Amino acid sequence: MAKEITSREENYSQWYLDIVKKAGLADNSPVRGCMVIKPYGYAIWEKMRDQLDKMFKETGHVNAYFPLFIPKSFLSKEAEHVEGFAKECAVVTHSRLMADPNGNGLIVDPEAKLEEELIVRPTSETIIWNTYRDWIKSYRDLPLLINQWANVVRWEMRTRPFLRTTEFLWQEGHTAHSTSEEAQMEAAMIHEVYARFAEDFMAMPVIKGAKTANERFAGALETYTIEALMQDGKALQAGTSHFLGQNFAKAFDVTFLSDKNQVEHVWATSWGVSTRLIGGLIMTHSDDEGLVLPPKLAPTQVVIVPIPKPDPEIMLVADKIADQLKERGISVLIDKDDKNRPGFKFAEYEMKGIPVRIGLGKRDIENNQCEVARRDTKEKMPFGLDNIGEQISVLLDDIQENLFARAKSYRAEHTSEASNMAEFVDILDNKGGFVVAHWDGTTETELKIKEETKATIRCIALDALEEEGTCIYSGKKSTKKVIFARAY
Amino acid sequence: MAKEITSREENYSQWYLDIVKKAGLADNSPVRGCMVIKPYGYAIWEKMRDQLDKMFKETGHVNAYFPLFIPKSFLSKEAEHVEGFAKECAVVTHSRLMADPNGNGLIVDPEAKLEEELIVRPTSETIIWNTYRDWIKSYRDLPLLINQWANVVRWEMRTRPFLRTTEFLWQEGHTAHSTSEEAQMEAAMIHEVYARFAEDFMAMPVIKGAKTANERFAGALETYTIEALMQDGKALQAGTSHFLGQNFAKAFDVTFLSDKNQVEHVWATSWGVSTRLIGGLIMTHSDDEGLVLPPKLAPTQVVIVPIPKPDPEIMLVADKIADQLKERGISVLIDKDDKNRPGFKFAEYEMKGIPVRIGLGKRDIENNQCEVARRDTKEKMPFGLDNIGEQISVLLDDIQENLFARAKSYRAEHTSEASNMAEFVDILDNKGGFVVAHWDGTTETELKIKEETKATIRCIALDALEEEGTCIYSGKKSTKKVIFARAY
Repeated sequence: MAKEITSREENYSQWYLDIVKKAGLADNSPVRGCMVIKPYGYAIWEKMRDQLDKMFKETGHVNAYFPLFIPKSFLSKEAEHVEGFAKECAVVTHSRLMADPNGNGLIVDPEAKLEEELIVRPTSETIIWNTYRDWIKSYRDLPLLINQWANVVRWEMRTRPFLRTTEFLWQEGHTAHSTSEEAQMEAAMIHEVYARFAEDFMAMPVIKGAKTANERFAGALETYTIEALMQDGKALQAGTSHFLGQNFAKAFDVTFLSDKNQVEHVWATSWGVSTRLIGGLIMTHSDDEGLVLPPKLAPTQVVIVPIPKPDPEIMLVADKIADQLKERGISVLIDKDDKNRPGFKFAEYEMKGIPVRIGLGKRDIENNQCEVARRDTKEKMPFGLDNIGEQISVLLDDIQENLFARAKSYRAEHTSEASNMAEFVDILDNKGGFVVAHWDGTTETELKIKEETKATIRCIALDALEEEGTCIYSGKKSTKKVIFARAY
Repeated sequence: MAKEITSREENYSQWYLDIVKKAGLADNSPVRGCMVIKPYGYAIWEKMRDQLDKMFKETGHVNAYFPLFIPKSFLSKEAEHVEGFAKECAVVTHSRLMADPNGNGLIVDPEAKLEEELIVRPTSETIIWNTYRDWIKSYRDLPLLINQWANVVRWEMRTRPFLRTTEFLWQEGHTAHSTSEEAQMEAAMIHEVYARFAEDFMAMPVIKGAKTANERFAGALETYTIEALMQDGKALQAGTSHFLGQNFAKAFDVTFLSDKNQVEHVWATSWGVSTRLIGGLIMTHSDDEGLVLPPKLAPTQVVIVPIPKPDPEIMLVADKIADQLKERGISVLIDKDDKNRPGFKFAEYEMKGIPVRIGLGKRDIENNQCEVARRDTKEKMPFGLDNIGEQISVLLDDIQENLFARAKSYRAEHTSEASNMAEFVDILDNKGGFVVAHWDGTTETELKIKEETKATIRCIALDALEEEGTCIYSGKKSTKKVIFARAY
């Protein structure tokens, strides 16, 4: 089984696709750029969604649901926004099919042409702000803190499961505020929630920063991002939170009567993470044996494998172990298959990234112990059966921490400084990873660097120091280093 | 506030729309037939979804996600299915917009016409069975028990919030089995799950039955339904579970190698409930003061209102009560508003259908009690503050049971037998409700009755007795009474 995966060294892209397929996470579909999320992949998404949903609710947000379709004219109302999305959207033009009079199956019924075309939402700012106009009258209606879990469609030319697909699942928060300060605080707070989720649950270290003007969301005044580093040295934008100023309020004429009795435009944020996170999760931790999952997001945290096969005596002990784990909220599977050999099963569970495997044979039971294998380091060790629940619980915490520490040290090893273009290119070509360098702050330089090296400014880190320097490209003055990388 | 609702007697349809709007459940959208589900309405859907999801998982199902788009040619593959859905679907024909060369905003880019049009899924049998072809090879891959939570689109001509909308949210289960018997058992088992959910959680009594051939799902050999009765005497089809035979397996060539080493077509079921259930919930329990919610699905089960307004002493006691309720898993809101009068607030919470309201004033505290009002009967009674958690918990159970009993007795009062057409029409016109009557079993008679009376056969109840009789319409022999009603 494991042998069927291409190694990272041989072909990183193929390794990723192999894991997606062989771990049962997703499948291609007959619809260009759309994937089928298989039960195991969807179970990971459910864990992510439930945790994020909890964090959003704890910070005062509620969920709602807005239409899938957006009237074409809405898209044009915010100038930058339309520029960002009109070129990659699915357009509904008709509402009916009919039998082909020539007998060739079904054709679009020309009589059923829509008066105005509908766009399948690429994101929902426009339809939501059109709705907020009716919901917001006075400062008493603010803030409005709404999130939506939904599917969206962007007609991408090059797609890759989870990382970039035509249809994807996501959450999009859309909040409305009475002051600029409050909206900016909201965008920053959600940025922090995203970083906390990435690090504490995905065990994926992220850099928190702001996007350059050029890399901002279409229609935003400020875009905060969390940027992660994948094992091929490329960066992944994992979540963004936008301060939208009054752009959408003005485009859709959303005003409120302030507590000083003045009519003002509303201030906005929007923010989202998507099934792309699953791609990040895979590429942060997995290895040449398959998927590696942090325990907090693993649908099954522990698998118990009777050795060499299930029998009543072993199953009795397996059930007891499972009960002790379940008592602690640990999800556990007992392998009841009596056809395949243990070696085959071990490879299978490694492929699926189950954090802990417990092997249980007759001699183990005689010795009042079991053999525990951790997926992250592949170490095996005997555990006494007394108090197995607590021991496994401690082990799962340790795996979670180890994965984070490992990813952090990978990132540290792959974060370099460059003081000139020669160094910059050398790092990108030979080592990859984040490159910290001075930049003169102009879009012109940013675009030239991108053109020449394919590296983009991932972000201006929130904790970047103010320091004098010269731009690696233009030689002009710079006041801060920024973070470059080639990216997904 | 309450005065703003039209009474049921005056105009039942308007009463329904008033509740949807004033309780903050949903709003119209600029997209024809699509609604915005507001936070309060969505919170009810979340409670429904979480409970159903739990029941599906307990019965062995897992979730997955399939593409929103279905290639046009897929629809045609199952003959009855295409007949059922081709006439009411949103068709994506292009993948890009462009600036109108004449300067009139955006137009569809003619260069971006798709080779094959895509249908926005009205239901997912076709795309799912196309996928199952790759997933199912041997009897060892069966059964496949998959559910999907998704949005679907059916281009309805007449829409009404929740009850019938162009886009709606639902779950659709799609299972694959090696034998006809197993698939039939699955369809029946889910039918039972739906009935249990409707009765135990929605407190909405349902009749379990099978649809007539004429009323079956497009492509099904058997459709099981749960039918509920609304307060205007009309029936609501609340959930259906279909035995699909081998129709989709044959259309998409899904075969498996049986344990006897023979290649056979796979057997299928599909089943779904949708946001329509929220419409059923509203119309089963609500009254002229607003929404009435069963405690098990109420986002907020108890509201505590300080009287006449919050002050530190009252809030201290309110917090203590809230803590005791939360300990028991009861969701509770403390009203902290100090602007509106209690009377206004009471009407507001009645409108929202919060099952229990606790009024708390200084004199109450002196007497170590509070005033408890239940939404279902509008009774008020003093409750001692000692052990308030247990008392409220018992009260919530009582409300849940009372709502179910009340709906059941309404249904009993509105279920009549008719032995001839004159009686049949008289009942429909003057009393409404379910009419139990003999039918000769032919589609011809069924359609004539529908044409003449607008009543349809809701179902052949699973517990209908075998009894000789004559059809009320044709006078021909009948072996069973069936259940008629006018329906949503």
